[in-house]
Amino acid sequence: MDTLQLRKVGIDTYLENVAYLHRECEVYRAEGFQALSKIIIKLNHISIYAVLNVVDDAGIVSPGELGLSQQAFEQLNADEGTAVSVSQAAPPRSMDAVRRKINGERLNLEDFRAITNDIGKNRYSKMELAAFLVASGQTGLDREEILHLTQAMTESGDRLDWHDSVVVDKHCIGGIPGNRTSMIVAPIVAAHGTLMPKTSSRAITSPAGTADTMEVLANVELTPQQLHQVVAKERTCLAWGGTAGLAPVDDILISVERPLGIDSMGQMVASILSKKLAAGSTHLLIDIPVGTSAKVRHMREALQLRKLFEYTADRLNLQLDVVLSDGNQPVGRGIGPVLEARDVMQVLNNLDSAPNDLRQKSLRLAGRLLEFDPDVRGGNGFALARDILDSGRALKKMQAIIAAQGKQTTNFELGQRTMDVVAGKTGYVVAINNFQMSKIARLAGAPMDKGAGVDLFKKLGDPVEADTVVYRIHAQFPADFHFACALAQQDSGYRIGDQSRIPTPYAEL
Amino acid sequence: MDTLQLRKVGIDTYLENVAYLHRECEVYRAEGFQALSKIIIKLNHISIYAVLNVVDDAGIVSPGELGLSQQAFEQLNADEGTAVSVSQAAPPRSMDAVRRKINGERLNLEDFRAITNDIGKNRYSKMELAAFLVASGQTGLDREEILHLTQAMTESGDRLDWHDSVVVDKHCIGGIPGNRTSMIVAPIVAAHGTLMPKTSSRAITSPAGTADTMEVLANVELTPQQLHQVVAKERTCLAWGGTAGLAPVDDILISVERPLGIDSMGQMVASILSKKLAAGSTHLLIDIPVGTSAKVRHMREALQLRKLFEYTADRLNLQLDVVLSDGNQPVGRGIGPVLEARDVMQVLNNLDSAPNDLRQKSLRLAGRLLEFDPDVRGGNGFALARDILDSGRALKKMQAIIAAQGKQTTNFELGQRTMDVVAGKTGYVVAINNFQMSKIARLAGAPMDKGAGVDLFKKLGDPVEADTVVYRIHAQFPADFHFACALAQQDSGYRIGDQSRIPTPYAEL
Repeated sequence: MDTLQLRKVGIDTYLENVAYLHRECEVYRAEGFQALSKIIIKLNHISIYAVLNVVDDAGIVSPGELGLSQQAFEQLNADEGTAVSVSQAAPPRSMDAVRRKINGERLNLEDFRAITNDIGKNRYSKMELAAFLVASGQTGLDREEILHLTQAMTESGDRLDWHDSVVVDKHCIGGIPGNRTSMIVAPIVAAHGTLMPKTSSRAITSPAGTADTMEVLANVELTPQQLHQVVAKERTCLAWGGTAGLAPVDDILISVERPLGIDSMGQMVASILSKKLAAGSTHLLIDIPVGTSAKVRHMREALQLRKLFEYTADRLNLQLDVVLSDGNQPVGRGIGPVLEARDVMQVLNNLDSAPNDLRQKSLRLAGRLLEFDPDVRGGNGFALARDILDSGRALKKMQAIIAAQGKQTTNFELGQRTMDVVAGKTGYVVAINNFQMSKIARLAGAPMDKGAGVDLFKKLGDPVEADTVVYRIHAQFPADFHFACALAQQDSGYRIGDQSRIPTPYAEL
Repeated sequence: MDTLQLRKVGIDTYLENVAYLHRECEVYRAEGFQALSKIIIKLNHISIYAVLNVVDDAGIVSPGELGLSQQAFEQLNADEGTAVSVSQAAPPRSMDAVRRKINGERLNLEDFRAITNDIGKNRYSKMELAAFLVASGQTGLDREEILHLTQAMTESGDRLDWHDSVVVDKHCIGGIPGNRTSMIVAPIVAAHGTLMPKTSSRAITSPAGTADTMEVLANVELTPQQLHQVVAKERTCLAWGGTAGLAPVDDILISVERPLGIDSMGQMVASILSKKLAAGSTHLLIDIPVGTSAKVRHMREALQLRKLFEYTADRLNLQLDVVLSDGNQPVGRGIGPVLEARDVMQVLNNLDSAPNDLRQKSLRLAGRLLEFDPDVRGGNGFALARDILDSGRALKKMQAIIAAQGKQTTNFELGQRTMDVVAGKTGYVVAINNFQMSKIARLAGAPMDKGAGVDLFKKLGDPVEADTVVYRIHAQFPADFHFACALAQQDSGYRIGDQSRIPTPYAEL
């Protein structure tokens, strides 16, 4: 067989492998391959799949070379110049199961295992991933299928074992900006002594994830060894989960799900539970915010989702508790890493200026987590959590976590370009759109740009005059600043109205 | 606003626009954009959408440049070095309708118009296209929705007007290799005087389309002006339809549908009818082959599909006739452009060696098309077609078409690397798998490599000895030859068995 020389092409194709072949390649008919959309590159015992792009510029790859995008090159784990051969890739076998799902059939555990195995090996193109997600979102997965998908996704990567009978975690289904409770809850719970190894995600379509915000204060990119050391010492950590190889299929699915905006309940349950099971959790608290611009808008949906979580967790031997919370507005005041870190530290420092909603919500969640401890009497969790926070033990724990993970050496500052958005008329804040506030903060540069975001001066129910500043946009880069301001001018995300229109927060059931 | 300098990147990203931004770009945060998956590049009155790849090699793009893949660069229609600015692209608005479809809702004409308009403007990523296709394939489109989709797709591009009351065309739903009847039917029909401006596709996943095969004999890449001249002179043409801008949305959908292998009935009807309506057809004959390895396997599916074609065509004022044909094996002997052109010319030349099945099928289709002429008596079409073929008038017409389009100057030869596949045991040919034969021909290099393909020596029902050659693989390039032979050795696509197992061909209803 003729071979090509491997070359690394300095292009980052973001979670999709791309191979580059010169149009005049004498070994392979580049265009014929291209229309079929995927090729396999085999070397020793590694075989990787890649989409093919045809190149006409010998500066990128010459006719005798096979170029690989950065992530593909790394997967192959070989030096440039290595001789490789390629072949046409058949569509992954498990696409048959996806097609059966499209036709409305029910899939079993083996089907889901075959699918997650192929996805984990990067055999699915983004189109195929979208097909799987839509197919399982549309006719829906029944609860047995959700269970099987969760199981298959959990098995797709490594699984941590903390050798403890109570390993707690909490997870919010998302959609509420500023909702940085984990950075308050984890120190409280760990200060009590309960094991809570918290690995978090970076934001994908939101303006900040816990990992992005924690990174303002400390190093979050820990190796698995460092992670274990921090947890052994502090009973908790606040680290980025991306390096740990937990439920990697979930990350791949999310990379397609988010831009498509097709968050089905089944996929959500499987995604969250597989991640937590892989992370070694034994006890999990799920936070489902309910509100008009939250992911879950009605109580009946929240209850349906709760039951799916409970059914799946029970069968996979995970102790699960669910909190329904108010999702009518952002939590705290800041949206964006630096601003959210500020809110968190105000709460941990027990400052008068600390946002009370963030404090109350964190205490409620921490209280429920503490009650997973068999020695804590049912109903006593909240008071216990409050004692730990008020006494400064939570702050001390946070400082210890920061020291253990490594204090952040960069001093991130708030974006210096600012624009104030005013109320426009006199009245009360009667609505704050979570989607819109996230989008403005995102356009301003968050989370890439840690100092970018939105600082809320007024929350639901606050009285305002026509020229009262309701929030301030912070950005660093001119293009970002321009996009964010333009969006805010088009729709500020705030509605001012009569006092009678102020919505009542959803109380916990 | 800060701008970037436009640069053409010599990468062909195949129907998907890709923009390349250096990681150190000072104007835009490349990675933030990348996670959101799409950007808009605006220049004068043109705005194009592109997926973003982040570049670390200044040789590809420097930090002050914006690189565009070849097709994206052409769409922007500007010189390198032009100052451009980019912004984050929101998901196309019509994705809301797609999400409603995912949730099982029925879409109306306005929804489909919004979707096809966004697709036509390249605003959909491949993921979003896949989502639309799966959503409309899964719960299915009802017949009103198929009608609306067809209408919206027809409107998505230019529409030809031939100023004639009878403009006929034929179309096969595909899946049967060697089925090159159009190159026989069009000359017969045009020799009679009926207008049949035939624009054809190139093969996407099959080993040869009519355009690929006709290109062995003549130029098929005609400008719209040339196309009209040929048709004015010869009453027909056998050209590639890709340059005419007809139902362009169809081409985009097909580029996702084919690799996913999700050919839903609704999409098929809309795809075929929109293309033909845009091409100005008034009378259309649809060929639905039925067979165990055809797209349609059972008579009941064929009937269901026929009714969908009829319902949609009636409402869009297209006269439609359907032929159900035998799809149990390839038609003719050759699979691949040179081999299929050989079969076609044997039939047109009335040679004894001509494959009779190709001749008979072509006559039957031509007969039905001739009966669209009000002056041809019902039932007389077949005999009329046979007279035209037997008298040599069809051959003369073909020679005139070739002359009008421009005779092919390259002399394409059969691939010189050959492998003979033998029967393996004594008996009768009882099955020939269309999929497998297509795949072997495709791997051998067809249609890119015109001389590549498979030459069938034995067809269904033929008696064979153990060492009888049943077909010969032709290839030019060593890698292609290797792949094709390996696949044939794994599964030849032929089954030899008892005489009683020879399937009966599906007769026309």
